[in-house]
Amino acid sequence: MAVPKGKKVLRLDTICPQVREVRYAVRGEIAIRAEELKKELEKKGSNLPFKEIVNINIGNPQQLKQKPITFFRQVASLVEYPDLLLDENKDKVSLLFPTDAVERAKTLVDACGGSVGAYSHSQGIPHIRKNVAKFIEERDGYPADMNKVFLTMGASAGVQLALRFIIENSKVGIMIPIPQYPLYTATLSLYDGQAVPYYLDEENAWSMDIGELKKSVDEARQKDIDVRALCIINPGNPTGQCLTEQNMREVIEFCQRERLVLLADEVYQENIYMPSTRPFHSFKKVLKSMGPSFDDVELISFHSISKGMIGECGRRGGYFELQGIEQEVVDQIYKISSVSLCPNVQGQIMVDLMVNPPKPGDESYDLYTQEIDAIYQSLKRRSDLLCDAFNKLEDVTCNKAEGALYLFPRVRLPEGAIKAAAEAGKNPDDFYALAMLNGTGVCVVPGSGFGQEKGTYHFRATFLPPEELFSEFIDLLKRFHQDFMDKYRY
Amino acid sequence: MAVPKGKKVLRLDTICPQVREVRYAVRGEIAIRAEELKKELEKKGSNLPFKEIVNINIGNPQQLKQKPITFFRQVASLVEYPDLLLDENKDKVSLLFPTDAVERAKTLVDACGGSVGAYSHSQGIPHIRKNVAKFIEERDGYPADMNKVFLTMGASAGVQLALRFIIENSKVGIMIPIPQYPLYTATLSLYDGQAVPYYLDEENAWSMDIGELKKSVDEARQKDIDVRALCIINPGNPTGQCLTEQNMREVIEFCQRERLVLLADEVYQENIYMPSTRPFHSFKKVLKSMGPSFDDVELISFHSISKGMIGECGRRGGYFELQGIEQEVVDQIYKISSVSLCPNVQGQIMVDLMVNPPKPGDESYDLYTQEIDAIYQSLKRRSDLLCDAFNKLEDVTCNKAEGALYLFPRVRLPEGAIKAAAEAGKNPDDFYALAMLNGTGVCVVPGSGFGQEKGTYHFRATFLPPEELFSEFIDLLKRFHQDFMDKYRY
Repeated sequence: MAVPKGKKVLRLDTICPQVREVRYAVRGEIAIRAEELKKELEKKGSNLPFKEIVNINIGNPQQLKQKPITFFRQVASLVEYPDLLLDENKDKVSLLFPTDAVERAKTLVDACGGSVGAYSHSQGIPHIRKNVAKFIEERDGYPADMNKVFLTMGASAGVQLALRFIIENSKVGIMIPIPQYPLYTATLSLYDGQAVPYYLDEENAWSMDIGELKKSVDEARQKDIDVRALCIINPGNPTGQCLTEQNMREVIEFCQRERLVLLADEVYQENIYMPSTRPFHSFKKVLKSMGPSFDDVELISFHSISKGMIGECGRRGGYFELQGIEQEVVDQIYKISSVSLCPNVQGQIMVDLMVNPPKPGDESYDLYTQEIDAIYQSLKRRSDLLCDAFNKLEDVTCNKAEGALYLFPRVRLPEGAIKAAAEAGKNPDDFYALAMLNGTGVCVVPGSGFGQEKGTYHFRATFLPPEELFSEFIDLLKRFHQDFMDKYRY
Repeated sequence: MAVPKGKKVLRLDTICPQVREVRYAVRGEIAIRAEELKKELEKKGSNLPFKEIVNINIGNPQQLKQKPITFFRQVASLVEYPDLLLDENKDKVSLLFPTDAVERAKTLVDACGGSVGAYSHSQGIPHIRKNVAKFIEERDGYPADMNKVFLTMGASAGVQLALRFIIENSKVGIMIPIPQYPLYTATLSLYDGQAVPYYLDEENAWSMDIGELKKSVDEARQKDIDVRALCIINPGNPTGQCLTEQNMREVIEFCQRERLVLLADEVYQENIYMPSTRPFHSFKKVLKSMGPSFDDVELISFHSISKGMIGECGRRGGYFELQGIEQEVVDQIYKISSVSLCPNVQGQIMVDLMVNPPKPGDESYDLYTQEIDAIYQSLKRRSDLLCDAFNKLEDVTCNKAEGALYLFPRVRLPEGAIKAAAEAGKNPDDFYALAMLNGTGVCVVPGSGFGQEKGTYHFRATFLPPEELFSEFIDLLKRFHQDFMDKYRY
């Protein structure tokens, strides 16, 4: 049965087929082409029609020059080098760091047992989980239990862990929104579960339609798919919607009625651009507000340090909170977490800072609030600017971003473009996005990477580039789009 | 088909069965009992017969007061807080940090694209992969390709990824040493592969016996197991052996003959305590030294920042290098890595420091070599001290640690103890280790967590506690062991 000599053991046709099936467009063909173009731009004498690659394909704020929060980084710096916390260095350290950052760093190093280089508790440092629980309580007005909080290496790792648990076998189905962040479909491929898609309602600001959910679950169950969970990203990625409390209540009732675990990806909870009409509500809060008759609903809520105004993506930190999950399942989650030893401590520390920032009266409070507010206001302005620009393009419509970091405009492509795409062996939206990249250096993600209603074409764009670059790249986009439409118009 | 009302969707009997089957003793029953005892000790008026828990169950050096390497932590500190790298702060910063640390931090922040908070390349920051390749070349004297290096969140994440790829279906078998670090069996359970055990030869310093390997693979293939890979941990965990070059050559020939991917877990490559008689050789080097007729052998080698003299476990950093792996498989590894976005940047930075430490002439060189040498010499002394102490216990024998951080003594338990264990519903070695913990506060891992030949009983102990505590806890162990033997002697 051994592999014959002359052939490798590991080949495309012998690796785990679920691995092979995974698709992940955010870092797919277009992103790889952007890397190539970046290298070409670095060469002398490149004659590309643009001067730089504008990466609006991925929510990576600090890559696009968003400044980290000073207090957070001061603490991150201090915990690393124990000498900075010694009394004998106090005077020198005070020239560079505020006192509250030093105090926080001491607390955190103690909470790590004396060093940020040691493995921590596999579920996350207890002191930090306690602060997470307190943060949730203050946010929602309902109790939270630190023993139901697991720190993770980013929300992605948490989502992957939860899906791993729920997928008992290949008949198990998980409801996912379309469009969706492709982590969900990729993970379902990997774990051999069934994706049960439901469509968000583009005409109604990408809201969730309970009739659509019901139709989706019924159809899947008729096909013998054992549907066990529903995923929702709120605020939405790539769609930017922020669900109303009423809509969320309906979703919770639906999950209870249909016996579905609710997975709430709430990593954009701070990125709320219409706070008076579309405030953020956590699913935990709405569930608790519905009274004890909903206590049986199983909810897993995810959060992250990568988004918000923090944007510490590369550090890989986050958490999930369990609500209504059996203790014997919690114990299993702990066991599996322990095989990977612990989430990285530097990510855990940033979670502590996120959930427990400087308070009024603290030395760093003013700077902290200034920084957060400046980033927030600028994101809000940029989201409006880009949305307006998209809506001004011929045959393009774009919902406003109520939240998150993305716009997901719909492009009505001319027949000629659809035909040319087919001839090139590409999806029409891939074809459009590739043309945009090659013509302008602007890198977006085609809608097919997230899923979209048949016959509709979209792309996802972040509004993260520095504000001062906006008019230039919007200009490039305008010209590209007009040329493209003109070229393929019949 | 929906789960009936009144029952949870997620229960022990409905979660993924592979998750349920996972066993991971390093953080199992005994470790949990140790946590309970720790809490009891913190209470006033505890009347336990010891004053503290000595955690020699897990290779977590900094938990046991091993000091981090100063230069590494200075750089880790500087990269976090960009203000420290500004020219205007140069004078103040120079009061606390040496110039070479500042220079390195600048280089690394540039390599991250300006911020350690941004997602990096999914395979790891190219600058750091280049340094890893250089390190491998200098270590081995053979070329290494940065495009065949993947940075990971610790070696565990790398091993899990490799096993995920190799296990095409549930008939695929992976050869693992017994005793083994339970990451391997846990991951095989999770991915539904077959563990194909082979025994290390305790009588011959835990070496690999090719006859034993052949017997193991033949027996498995007769049972229709599709054996595709062989894992080896060298230096060994929990066994501490350091393989001879001759033995490694035989293993490589065996892998070529039997068409097996070789997975070489080399995280303890710096922990070598008999360097003249048992130096470390990497499998990559030995393979390359065997000439082009072995170029078809598929090898994946793992390394980590958690061990060596660095011991930065909590940071989760490491890498693997691919040798002889098809490019189409490398592309798939990249795709899967991209779903998790990137390894945490703080772990990547420590990988850079590990593979590219201060050089002679650098400002920090002397301190760096002093620190590394002091830790190394102390580990060497401690491994001898503990090994001698074990060998002096009645009916205990222990091989010397040629490498790694562990001893794995064998205890010949009296019949009475085996009977008492059976009555308590426990493995004899679990029974012994639990008695040790309850009697002394010393926490070890029973041999059954790693696997051992039938009818033999072992435990794993690190020699990481501070040297000044050694005589006290060795004394406690001696008294416990004698009492235990006396109690259960017929």
